[in-house]
Amino acid sequence: MSPPADDGSAVFTPTERSRVRRRPQRARYDEQGVYEVLDAGVMAHVGYVIDGQPFVTPTAYWREGRTLYWHGAAASRMLAAVAGGAPACVTVSFLDGFIVGRSGIVHSLNYRSVMAFGRARLVTALAEKRVAMDAFIDRLYAGRPLKLRPTTDMELTAIALVEMEIEEASAKVKDSGPTDLPTDAGWAPWSGVFPVETRIGAARPAEGMGAGGPPTPDLAPYAEGARLDEALSTASRRYLGLPSSA
Amino acid sequence: MSPPADDGSAVFTPTERSRVRRRPQRARYDEQGVYEVLDAGVMAHVGYVIDGQPFVTPTAYWREGRTLYWHGAAASRMLAAVAGGAPACVTVSFLDGFIVGRSGIVHSLNYRSVMAFGRARLVTALAEKRVAMDAFIDRLYAGRPLKLRPTTDMELTAIALVEMEIEEASAKVKDSGPTDLPTDAGWAPWSGVFPVETRIGAARPAEGMGAGGPPTPDLAPYAEGARLDEALSTASRRYLGLPSSA
Repeated sequence: MSPPADDGSAVFTPTERSRVRRRPQRARYDEQGVYEVLDAGVMAHVGYVIDGQPFVTPTAYWREGRTLYWHGAAASRMLAAVAGGAPACVTVSFLDGFIVGRSGIVHSLNYRSVMAFGRARLVTALAEKRVAMDAFIDRLYAGRPLKLRPTTDMELTAIALVEMEIEEASAKVKDSGPTDLPTDAGWAPWSGVFPVETRIGAARPAEGMGAGGPPTPDLAPYAEGARLDEALSTASRRYLGLPSSA
Repeated sequence: MSPPADDGSAVFTPTERSRVRRRPQRARYDEQGVYEVLDAGVMAHVGYVIDGQPFVTPTAYWREGRTLYWHGAAASRMLAAVAGGAPACVTVSFLDGFIVGRSGIVHSLNYRSVMAFGRARLVTALAEKRVAMDAFIDRLYAGRPLKLRPTTDMELTAIALVEMEIEEASAKVKDSGPTDLPTDAGWAPWSGVFPVETRIGAARPAEGMGAGGPPTPDLAPYAEGARLDEALSTASRRYLGLPSSA
């Protein structure tokens, strides 16, 4: 069911499950709109159900084509619940700003988010797990797997790796300022937007590394002050072999 | 069922639902540990179930005592699903850093997260909604509701306000560096931590505001460069009448 090319031109067909009801003008269902959000992040919130009770677990993830991957310890409750093919919802979101206006109702947040729906499957073959785990490192840190002590079979066995083909997805983006209402006229508190930015801080070398080592190319995107969403997007585009900007 | 004082000394008794299974040494069940995470955030991921399908919706929230509040449009699918008393899971998380090591298995993320479980209830009385919506503004921007054009009954009617008493909650925090394994000896890529920090950017005044206006006390925590988690924690402690540091 994968599209012929990962060029972002295909569209996820929305159903009742994924169609955005509130503010549909902010929604996108095309791959490019969905992937722009997914590829800018590394932490997703995975929703699953056990005996009618919803759980939302934050977890690291990555994307290849229409497939999302995440992993955890083989004993994890989340992985046991989703890996049997039960329906899951993977949500990725970024807080981009605080909107302050002249009336309470105008106050809001700017954000980007994706909700992706599918059924997860456990990847069990060790060779496939090895490739995928290296892929996750490579997606974040180009070329780094070649520098690392190779992962052992025992380590791979202890990991539960999950893949989920996205059946449906929607992206929703709000990037606006306060929109005064006619009745707000005459009320004059400061109004505007406080942007929120997530950036890389000063690296903390492990013991024995020394602080002065030159950054290696695999870690270059994580230079102090870099925007995290941009670093992750750049690393993802390189990994997926896409042009360096959308 | 509320504790006698909001001093963080009480403990959420974990059950199978909320007990942290993986790395239990990173878990906390006391109110202080849970509230430290909840009060540092403004975006939660709300998990709910419709016909067996899990949904995870990002939404703004706030806390008072053991109660979480969030809101949305009255027509929202999420609010319709949770407000009838169905079980919900509210997860708040922060990505704090990337851990890079000498073997794939050591690579990880630093994070703080809370999973809170309960059953939501719709708040319908207009007077109660007005107080709560003002409280949300006040929790973020001290004293700001007094400066705003008052919210109308029609606006309040269009909002669905939800409250959820936390029945169970667990916090999980990882703040570490790469822990070399004995078999990593001799492998020498740079290892350490890239911290991730979310901060306030340069304010964007609405049209007609002018860029040079003095910041007013309600907006002071959102000064350019402020750490968002610290700004929100400070604002929350003031709103809740707690000492200014834990």
